Amino acid sequence: MSGSEPASGDLRVGSELLVRAIAGVPTINSGDDLFEVIVSALARAETDLADGDIVVLASKIVSRAEGCFVDLGSIVPSDPAEHLGREVDKDPRLVELILRESVGISRKTTGALIVRHRLGFLSANAGIDASNAAPFGAPESSGPWVLVLPRDPDATAAALRAKLGERFSANVGVLITDSWGRPFRRGTVGFALGVAGLPPVWDRRGAVDRHGRVLEATESAVADSIAAAADLVAGQADEGRPLTLVRGLRFQPSGDSAEALLRNPEDDLYA
Amino acid sequence: MSGSEPASGDLRVGSELLVRAIAGVPTINSGDDLFEVIVSALARAETDLADGDIVVLASKIVSRAEGCFVDLGSIVPSDPAEHLGREVDKDPRLVELILRESVGISRKTTGALIVRHRLGFLSANAGIDASNAAPFGAPESSGPWVLVLPRDPDATAAALRAKLGERFSANVGVLITDSWGRPFRRGTVGFALGVAGLPPVWDRRGAVDRHGRVLEATESAVADSIAAAADLVAGQADEGRPLTLVRGLRFQPSGDSAEALLRNPEDDLYA
Repeated sequence: MSGSEPASGDLRVGSELLVRAIAGVPTINSGDDLFEVIVSALARAETDLADGDIVVLASKIVSRAEGCFVDLGSIVPSDPAEHLGREVDKDPRLVELILRESVGISRKTTGALIVRHRLGFLSANAGIDASNAAPFGAPESSGPWVLVLPRDPDATAAALRAKLGERFSANVGVLITDSWGRPFRRGTVGFALGVAGLPPVWDRRGAVDRHGRVLEATESAVADSIAAAADLVAGQADEGRPLTLVRGLRFQPSGDSAEALLRNPEDDLYA
Repeated sequence: MSGSEPASGDLRVGSELLVRAIAGVPTINSGDDLFEVIVSALARAETDLADGDIVVLASKIVSRAEGCFVDLGSIVPSDPAEHLGREVDKDPRLVELILRESVGISRKTTGALIVRHRLGFLSANAGIDASNAAPFGAPESSGPWVLVLPRDPDATAAALRAKLGERFSANVGVLITDSWGRPFRRGTVGFALGVAGLPPVWDRRGAVDRHGRVLEATESAVADSIAAAADLVAGQADEGRPLTLVRGLRFQPSGDSAEALLRNPEDDLYA
């Protein structure tokens, strides 16, 4: 993954942020056009996008649209997966899939493998989702089904941003989010898996405080904070509210992707 | 710190969340009554608190009100602090203060000590703040001044919640927040330092999805997510917007404190 410094995204926060779940998103299946899904849901909510709006999509609907369903019944685990499955008491077919989706194991414990996902971030069980994970029309005899994370969330976010911006003649941002369980703190929070249009990190290093002191440690993870806020109205686990509109952040367009949110492993004190 | 399971806070999310910075909070000094400060700012904003509202305070104003100013010029570093200061290239007086504020060192690197704060969480440099940290009337010859974190944020949040609830005849929540730099991901996000009235963790383990599967890993860190959302409008580093109102989360009152957000070190794969 890239080790480049994130650009200093110019961002001025308004004094009010609206975080609104957009209802009426149907269960998504392989091949569905998410742009049309978003446009239809916004139309039913009688909401147009305006400059500065951020459209937040739960990764699950992106995975479903991309057909990222995997039938565990079709997977033949390798010897290392069999071995690791016994070690952490986990279905070796799922372990095999976790290994395929990741580039390395960070920690392991009963029931969980913390891996570095192929997309670069740390993740329990490679973000593989086993709830409501069957595709439409799957035979009764198939499965169990799971969903893997989207193939290239940054590219998907960028493509959706371009089409939404054109449709609404507005400079918008798009986030694709998932939730993660953090080291040291209990409970999951939303985080940004794919980013387009807004600065993922707001770099205020070098700004000065009111006494002229240079501020330290003021690199704010804006995209992750928005993902956390959206997660509050998106709810969890079910597919009822996978689409959220966040309004009130005034940002200058940024070309940075979600990679800007990843620490280099060699700089990470806990890697 | 407690290792007890957090209670299963009942929380139903509305479809819309409003995150509003409340303007007009003056620079706080030692001894100021934060209850009166909040009430005055809400009055100027022509806003009454209603059931389910969450009042979010940046820890900095709590520290200032509690007089948590420390004149580094008055600190005589111990031998271990002198040694550690040379090792990480940090003012030994600041290192001494970090050691006093913490119960153990987790990692160290040039310019930063990652410690377990006396309040239980992991923190870079014990959350000590060096920007705009002088008290009113400090002599020119004094300092440099820094601010340490509030003494007991849960107790302060609970006291404020009781008084605000009485004043507005409403069941409200109070959060005291700070920001932290996470392992693995760049940039800081808000987190909950003190919690009163709302469930810090929303425990949905045991719920079932629409196919009757028991959901896994659905413990949501609600208080941290709200802190992250508030951080987006509160801005950073300066004292301009230390007070935020979050409206739209429908929660059942909870007696849990911010301790519910801490993993037991023995359960933590990265401790």
